Amino acid sequence: MKNPLLIPELRELMAVNDTAAIREFCQQSHPESVAELIEALDTEEIWRILQMLDLPQRASIFSHFDLDQQVELATGHNRVQMAHLLEEMPADDRADLVQNLDKKVRDELLPLVARAEREDIKRLARYEEETAGAAMSTDYAVLRPDVTIEEAIHQLRAQAPDKETIYYIYVVDEYRKLIGFVSLKDIIVARPGRLIRDLMHTDVIKANVHDDQESVANQVEKYDLIAIPVVDDDNVIVGIVTHDDAIDIIRQEQTEDIEKLMAISGEHESTPYLKISAWRHFRNRATWIFILGLVSLIGGLIIQLHEEMLVQIAVLATLIPMLAATGGNTGSQSAALVIRALAVKEIFGRDILRVLFKEFCVALPLAFVMSILAFGRLFLFASGETMPPGVSLWMLAFAAGVALALQVLSSTLIGALLPLGAVALKLDPAVVASPSLATIVDITGLLIYFTVVSVMVMPA
Amino acid sequence: MKNPLLIPELRELMAVNDTAAIREFCQQSHPESVAELIEALDTEEIWRILQMLDLPQRASIFSHFDLDQQVELATGHNRVQMAHLLEEMPADDRADLVQNLDKKVRDELLPLVARAEREDIKRLARYEEETAGAAMSTDYAVLRPDVTIEEAIHQLRAQAPDKETIYYIYVVDEYRKLIGFVSLKDIIVARPGRLIRDLMHTDVIKANVHDDQESVANQVEKYDLIAIPVVDDDNVIVGIVTHDDAIDIIRQEQTEDIEKLMAISGEHESTPYLKISAWRHFRNRATWIFILGLVSLIGGLIIQLHEEMLVQIAVLATLIPMLAATGGNTGSQSAALVIRALAVKEIFGRDILRVLFKEFCVALPLAFVMSILAFGRLFLFASGETMPPGVSLWMLAFAAGVALALQVLSSTLIGALLPLGAVALKLDPAVVASPSLATIVDITGLLIYFTVVSVMVMPA
Repeated sequence: MKNPLLIPELRELMAVNDTAAIREFCQQSHPESVAELIEALDTEEIWRILQMLDLPQRASIFSHFDLDQQVELATGHNRVQMAHLLEEMPADDRADLVQNLDKKVRDELLPLVARAEREDIKRLARYEEETAGAAMSTDYAVLRPDVTIEEAIHQLRAQAPDKETIYYIYVVDEYRKLIGFVSLKDIIVARPGRLIRDLMHTDVIKANVHDDQESVANQVEKYDLIAIPVVDDDNVIVGIVTHDDAIDIIRQEQTEDIEKLMAISGEHESTPYLKISAWRHFRNRATWIFILGLVSLIGGLIIQLHEEMLVQIAVLATLIPMLAATGGNTGSQSAALVIRALAVKEIFGRDILRVLFKEFCVALPLAFVMSILAFGRLFLFASGETMPPGVSLWMLAFAAGVALALQVLSSTLIGALLPLGAVALKLDPAVVASPSLATIVDITGLLIYFTVVSVMVMPA
Repeated sequence: MKNPLLIPELRELMAVNDTAAIREFCQQSHPESVAELIEALDTEEIWRILQMLDLPQRASIFSHFDLDQQVELATGHNRVQMAHLLEEMPADDRADLVQNLDKKVRDELLPLVARAEREDIKRLARYEEETAGAAMSTDYAVLRPDVTIEEAIHQLRAQAPDKETIYYIYVVDEYRKLIGFVSLKDIIVARPGRLIRDLMHTDVIKANVHDDQESVANQVEKYDLIAIPVVDDDNVIVGIVTHDDAIDIIRQEQTEDIEKLMAISGEHESTPYLKISAWRHFRNRATWIFILGLVSLIGGLIIQLHEEMLVQIAVLATLIPMLAATGGNTGSQSAALVIRALAVKEIFGRDILRVLFKEFCVALPLAFVMSILAFGRLFLFASGETMPPGVSLWMLAFAAGVALALQVLSSTLIGALLPLGAVALKLDPAVVASPSLATIVDITGLLIYFTVVSVMVMPA
C-alpha cells in the first residue's frame, strides 16, 4: 500500500470533483484497501465514489465491505442500480447479502436481478447454514474432457473474468457430473495438442453440498487446495469453496471454540465486539453465569452440611480457595488439550483409554506437588489454631494433602473425560466449557475434602 | 479418495513385489493421502515404497509426513539418497526438516546436498522463528518486466515444475528488487503481444522478512491472496508465504491462544497430543498450577483473618463457592472477548474507555441478577442458623447480595482491563490466562465479601 489516499484528501478530491484521480487510486489499490478506507465515509459519499467506477470494480470493492455495511448501503440505494451491482458480485457474497436484507428490500430488489443470477441466489439460499452449500461459490471454471489444451486455454480466457478462480478447472461430462480436474499449471506445462482427458486427475478430492463447512475447510487445509469442488448427491458439480473462504470458516470456528470454552452462548457471529449491543452481550453471557451460579450453590450446601466441622476446625476453610483453584485449573488444562486434539483429529473417541492413562500419568506428579503445598500450608501456618480434642495438626495437614492430591487426579481425569464423553454422545466436545468444568470440580473437590477430613481426623 | 489401498493389501503387493500396482496407486492419489496411509508402515517398508517412485513424487510424499516421522526416516537412511531427496523437497519443508535433525546427522548430510540447495537451507535457517523469513518458501516464480506474454508463458512452462505456485508471478528488476506482480490469470487473458510491464500491478501487498508470521498470515487472509511475497530491507524478493502456509500459521496461533488461555506454557508445538510425553505435558502445565495454587493461598489467608466472623456466622462460608465461580466466569468471559477482539484487530489499546464502558453496561444487569440469587440463597436457606446477637438474617442476606453485585462488576472489569493493560505494556494480551484471572478475582471477591459483611452487619 504505497501512499494510500487519506480520508481528508479523498474528500478534497470529491469536493473538486476530480473523478480521474479517484478512479486512478481505486484502480491502483487492492479492492480490500479501498473498501477499508472509504468505509469511514458516510453512505452518500461512498456511493458517489462507487458510481465513478465501472461496474466490475464497483462490485469487487462493494463485496469487501463487511456485511452490516453492505446491508446499509444496499437498503438506501436505487434498486435498479443495486440489482446490477448484485449481478456482478461474487456468487457467495451476493447470496449472503441478499439473505441479510429486510424482506421488503429483498422483495423489491430480486425481481430486478437478471434471471440467471436470481436463480443462483435462490439456489444458494436453500442450503442449510454452515454447510458446504451455504459457504460455496458458483463461479467456477469447467471444461469437457475432449477439448485440446489449445482449445481449453481459449475457453478459459473467455470464462476467466467472472470466475473466482481459473487455477483449478473441473472436468465434467455431458450431465455436468464431476469426472476429474486439471490445474492451470498442468495446462500451461502440457503440449498444446494434448487432450484434457489425458491430463486430468480422476481421483478428485471433493465435498458434498451437505457436508459441514468445517470439515470442508479442513480438507482444503489438509490437501493444500486452492479450491475444493462441491457436488450434489448425484456427483454433479454445484460449486467450489476457495482457499480464502476456508480461512474465513477456520476463523469463525476458532471464535466459536474460544467463546464456547468460556461458556458464552449466542451465534458466535463475527460482528465486531464493539458493534454488539451491551444487551446482546448480556444475553449471550447471562444464561451460563446464572446456571453456574445456581450449580455453585451445591458447593455451598456441602459446606453448610459440614458447618459443625468448620466451626470446630475453622482453619479448614482456609484451603477451600486453593482446592477450587487447583481443581479448576488442572481440569481446564486437560479439557482444553483434549478438546483441541479432538478438533484437529489427533485423537478420536476410541482413544479414550490411552488419553485417560496419559492424563493420569500427568496428574500423578501434579497431585504430589500440590499435596505437599497443602500439607505445608496447614502445618506451617495453622499452628496456634484451636483444635478439637483428639485432632492433631499433623493428621489435619496430612488429610488436607491427601484431599488435594485426590482433587488434582479427579479434576484432571474429569476434564479429559467430559469432552470424550460429549463426542461419544455425538455432542460438540467444546460444550464442556471451562467455567462449567471449574464449577463441577469445585463441588467434587469439596466433597472429597470434607469426606477425607472427616474420615481421617474427626473423632468418631 | 476412491478405494484407497489399505495397509494389508499394500503389504501383499509388496510381498509379491508388484511395483507397478504400487506405483500406479501412488500416482493416482494425492501425496497427502499416500503419506497418511503408509505412515502406518514401519520405516523400512516406507522406504521400500518410496524407492519405487521417481524422485519428485518421492519428495512430495515425503514432505507430507509429519516432522517427527520425517526426522526418523531421514536419520536411519542412506545419506546420499537422502541428500538427493532434500534437493527435491519444497524449500520451506526442507529447511524445517534439516533444523530438526541431530547435529551429527545434519553434518553428515549437508555436505552431500547440491551447493545451491545447501545455501538455501542455510539461508532459511538464519531467520528467527515465527518470522516471515522462517515460514517462507524460496520456490517462487519471477519475470522481468520487459518480456512479452508469449515469452512469459514460455518461461513459466520452464519454471513450473519446481515452483510452489506459478499463479502469482513477481516482477523484478535487474537487482531482483520487487517492482510488481502479475497473476497467471492476467497473463492468460492478455493479448500475447503485450509486455509484462504494461500488465503488472505495481501496488504489491508484501511482507518484510522480519515480520511476525502471524501478521503475514493475516495479510494473506485479509487480501485473499494465494501467496504473499517476502522482501528484505532493500525490497529484494527473497521468498513467498503461500495460502496453505498461512492456514498452518493461523492454526498454530489458534492452538497457542487456547493453551495460553488455559495457562499451559511450553512451545505450543504442533506435536500431536498423544505423542507428547507425559513428562513434557507435566512440565508445560505444572508451573502455572503451582504458582496459582500458591496465589490462591492468599484467599485462604483472607478467610483465616475473618475466622472469628466465620465461627460466629458459619453460614457465610456457604456463599464462598458461588462468589468464586461467578467471579471467575464473568472475568473469563470478558477477558476472552477482549483478547479475541484485540487479536483480530477489532479493538485497540486506545479503545480502553469504550470497552470498559461496554463491559460495565453488560455487568450491571448481571450483577443485579446474581445479587438476587445470593440474597435468596441466604434468606431462604439460612433461617434456623445461629446468628450472633444484633445480626439479622435480612441484613446478612442483603449484604451478601451487595457483595455478589460488586464481585460481578469488579471481575468483569478486571477481566477486560488486564488484556488491555498487557497490550499497553507491549505484552501478549493472552498472557492473562483465564485460570490466573479466576485466581485473582477469587481473592478480590473474598476481600469484597468480608469487608461488605463486616461493615454492614457485624456489631461494632
